[in-house]
Amino acid sequence: MKIAIQGERGSFSHEAARRMVPGCEIIACARSTEVFDRVERGSAHAAVIPIENSLAGSVAEHLDLLLTRNVFIQREFRLRIVHNLMGMPALSMSQLRRVLSHPVALDQCRDFFRKNPKVEAVPFYDTAGSVKHVMERQLNDAAGIAGTQAASAYAAKILKAGIEDDKKNYTRFFLISKKKKVLPRANKTSIVFGVKNIAGALFKALSVFALRDISLSKIESRPVRGTPWEYVFYLDFLRGQDEAAANALRHLAEIAEPVKVLGIYPAAR
Amino acid sequence: MKIAIQGERGSFSHEAARRMVPGCEIIACARSTEVFDRVERGSAHAAVIPIENSLAGSVAEHLDLLLTRNVFIQREFRLRIVHNLMGMPALSMSQLRRVLSHPVALDQCRDFFRKNPKVEAVPFYDTAGSVKHVMERQLNDAAGIAGTQAASAYAAKILKAGIEDDKKNYTRFFLISKKKKVLPRANKTSIVFGVKNIAGALFKALSVFALRDISLSKIESRPVRGTPWEYVFYLDFLRGQDEAAANALRHLAEIAEPVKVLGIYPAAR
Repeated sequence: MKIAIQGERGSFSHEAARRMVPGCEIIACARSTEVFDRVERGSAHAAVIPIENSLAGSVAEHLDLLLTRNVFIQREFRLRIVHNLMGMPALSMSQLRRVLSHPVALDQCRDFFRKNPKVEAVPFYDTAGSVKHVMERQLNDAAGIAGTQAASAYAAKILKAGIEDDKKNYTRFFLISKKKKVLPRANKTSIVFGVKNIAGALFKALSVFALRDISLSKIESRPVRGTPWEYVFYLDFLRGQDEAAANALRHLAEIAEPVKVLGIYPAAR
Repeated sequence: MKIAIQGERGSFSHEAARRMVPGCEIIACARSTEVFDRVERGSAHAAVIPIENSLAGSVAEHLDLLLTRNVFIQREFRLRIVHNLMGMPALSMSQLRRVLSHPVALDQCRDFFRKNPKVEAVPFYDTAGSVKHVMERQLNDAAGIAGTQAASAYAAKILKAGIEDDKKNYTRFFLISKKKKVLPRANKTSIVFGVKNIAGALFKALSVFALRDISLSKIESRPVRGTPWEYVFYLDFLRGQDEAAANALRHLAEIAEPVKVLGIYPAAR
């Protein structure tokens, strides 16, 4: 099964894909739009995309693409994020001058930079890509920050493991495909909807869930691209394909427009 | 008046500060935590921080800091974001090989990179900082992307103006200070609150506004740092210090915990 991911081999998306679809073939894409293109056109069977990190929040671009593209969430997965400092086998901490990684990863390892003030944090486009870069150029004063899977992918040595500030660091991934398939034990639904900008509009929209005792696990307003300060709402509720959920969605369609079901899938543990 | 900003002189935060507090003295800070430290300790009178971009969404770190730090929003301001390509006076498009800027700015100029496939996008920690870097090192094959104010700050030449993909690109800034001062024409309130993770909890919380015909202009759930998948809600409503707002907040305190008023201020046009 061909799975598209954004970023390099050895990235957290790669690790999530490996865990969600054991034995899959990875198609590494430079951009998220390419990942969605491949799923829509069928040159990948599915894609694994990060949607939310417990510290950094949502991946805005992926929320936007779920709204506009013809894809469906099949499954979710939570990956514990551990950041490791890695580089050339001969590299030691005393030689280290620069550490490259994705800005979010650098930001999650602030304590390391505070304790090592001589080491400069250099933003890079990707966590695994920073390790690939350091190894390919055989840099002897620089390291990357990435998951352990990047050390295997590029034969890098881990100088320091687990340098993230906050151990309660998880990223939620979606497996998306073109098929509107719902797995048997699906008990969670992700939707996106818009309401008119009038008092009580969101309250009315949420009433369709509250009146049916349906629990929400997430709500987030997002600005609509190209229309400053108009919002759509991304909402997850804890029901699968049952009567209450169907009634709530029918009721919501009376109040909100558009309403798009992004996926119905088993909730991750 | 001393105003702290995150990032270099010539950044969009600098421009917003200049427009919000004409004649202010800028204290440029490397990190957002330093900006909030200075406001709390009094080594800056106030700070100007970006809180939300109409395309990229919220600045998660600033939402977190508004929750935990002892500061109060005095005013909001919306700045139209125009991205410009700039560098050394002798630089021409044919020599250009690399363009440095903040990842969000690079992401908002995708069309430029699509039309110029030989030019590499290189993430940098700051928009204005990328221009400073290019000018200080007198790079003859690289440019930065930043607002026009960065061209003045570092005497750079603008090669191409307005290269952002989407012209409806605005960033909302807050002026924050330690004082809990409310300006005379305040008609907007920002709060953050938490609710128990039970069905209907958010619905009940929103009822305190709906029952009083109070319009919301924003709601966003954010994961609580250190507690994966528990959320607080950031909410803006369109009322100042009046009886309905006071009643709604008293009512909310019966339902939600914690409830923190982040500021009461005049809504930007």
